[in-house]
Amino acid sequence: MDEASAEVQGRVRDSFERQGLMHHLGARLAVIAPGRVHIVLPSRPEVTQQHGYFHAGATSSIADSAGGYAAFTLFPEESSVLTVEYKINLLAPAEGDHLEAVGTVLKSGRTLTVCQLEVFSVQGSRRTLVATGQQTLIQVAARPER
Amino acid sequence: MDEASAEVQGRVRDSFERQGLMHHLGARLAVIAPGRVHIVLPSRPEVTQQHGYFHAGATSSIADSAGGYAAFTLFPEESSVLTVEYKINLLAPAEGDHLEAVGTVLKSGRTLTVCQLEVFSVQGSRRTLVATGQQTLIQVAARPER
Amino acid sequence: MDEASAEVQGRVRDSFERQGLMHHLGARLAVIAPGRVHIVLPSRPEVTQQHGYFHAGATSSIADSAGGYAAFTLFPEESSVLTVEYKINLLAPAEGDHLEAVGTVLKSGRTLTVCQLEVFSVQGSRRTLVATGQQTLIQVAARPER
Amino acid sequence: MDEASAEVQGRVRDSFERQGLMHHLGARLAVIAPGRVHIVLPSRPEVTQQHGYFHAGATSSIADSAGGYAAFTLFPEESSVLTVEYKINLLAPAEGDHLEAVGTVLKSGRTLTVCQLEVFSVQGSRRTLVATGQQTLIQVAARPER
Repeated sequence: MDEASAEVQGRVRDSFERQGLMHHLGARLAVIAPGRVHIVLPSRPEVTQQHGYFHAGATSSIADSAGGYAAFTLFPEESSVLTVEYKINLLAPAEGDHLEAVGTVLKSGRTLTVCQLEVFSVQGSRRTLVATGQQTLIQVAARPER
Repeated sequence: MDEASAEVQGRVRDSFERQGLMHHLGARLAVIAPGRVHIVLPSRPEVTQQHGYFHAGATSSIADSAGGYAAFTLFPEESSVLTVEYKINLLAPAEGDHLEAVGTVLKSGRTLTVCQLEVFSVQGSRRTLVATGQQTLIQVAARPER
Repeated sequence: MDEASAEVQGRVRDSFERQGLMHHLGARLAVIAPGRVHIVLPSRPEVTQQHGYFHAGATSSIADSAGGYAAFTLFPEESSVLTVEYKINLLAPAEGDHLEAVGTVLKSGRTLTVCQLEVFSVQGSRRTLVATGQQTLIQVAARPER
Repeated sequence: MDEASAEVQGRVRDSFERQGLMHHLGARLAVIAPGRVHIVLPSRPEVTQQHGYFHAGATSSIADSAGGYAAFTLFPEESSVLTVEYKINLLAPAEGDHLEAVGTVLKSGRTLTVCQLEVFSVQGSRRTLVATGQQTLIQVAARPER
């Protein structure tokens, strides 16, 4: 599996560390490849909906971040990424040891990037596609931290 | 502003209480009307992205729940709701004292319900539309708690 | 009902005339207001699906054009519009004398514009919402005709 | 390449023949495999937008039909298919000899089916992905022809 350069990995990790939501949910970066990023979210009561499954919002949150960082791996330094929009289908109730979101760049343009979003639930060796989506992102000049 | 019946409000509140994610994010139900539900999410570091704005995942999570419960207010007892899919556009960086997500039923069918999703950021008396979306939900037989 | 300036109306009509598909389907411009455009499509066998209703593709085609021209009414001269993406829910079988698509700008940015899309079927005085959608467009420099 | 059974192919072809829009655009069925259908649309002035490229509405129309028939190949006899919603990203200006839309079932449920939509432009031996989408469909009892 290809890995992104150390410089790119560093930029992605620095940015991810600053995402309060990812930390609060308990999510972590699992793979940083050029144009593809995986984020893992362990099962815990704090990320559930009313029936005890992963909440669609938790599923979407890691999918959105995975796609955003996948786009970001292909951006020049001193640039930043914003989600323009995404659409996600929840295919099956999401349960298991953890979720793994995979964001993959489908088309990288000068201004806009389009990513495929996939989320798998993982239980032991069983891996089930539980959500699939499509996301549009925009490259913007890096903004100073607030 | 119309309110849903006490029975419906009770069912919505009971279900919301069981959503571990909503509690963990700090979200609360603000309005439960027939076919329309509002959810409020106060600003805090735990719901941010890398620039300190609300994370698109947090914005989407409360939008998804608001739409889901808006649909649920029109369902018969002993039924349950699942999100089939949604699409959301992030219109502006989301900052302020809190977010308010409004889910409104556009079309209520026997099997499928379609909702409009809107999220406003609120800073004092200023209210800005920061996200708008569209969601499809399915009515299913109530499932026993896990 | 507000009308766009004569200059803007002229630009929209010129562009619409060059859309071979709109002409081929039998669609026509009905309203050109600032940030809002209506397109009408009469019922005819050439625009049906297998059950005799309007085909989702015909419904979407006029919705896409209505949103595109709604965005275009707010653009400067010497610019052009491209659809980045859209999402549409088909709410009910579309039948009647004609369809009327309404594209309305929700957010007009420097680069991107977001529109609401609505399609009504009209039968005599009865008007039914048959599709609702959301669209993202990008402003580009006017390109020479091919 | 797998082909669907003669019975399924017959049902798909019969239904396609009744889609007035597909005939009017000049589209034809190219592949009918279990869970996957390809539709081809030759270039002609009748399917263009204002710059002479394929209109997003034409691109979407064949994508929607390809996904619908892909779902239909997996349905029992005496059932019918309706598009619930779809989302499509237009990745590049669509030009060339013809377009080829590919609808592929991602998840086939009892009530709902989710398809991936891809549209390629083909110029000689060059094949470019010009649109990608995601579609939700519902299985309904076969309805009598109008």
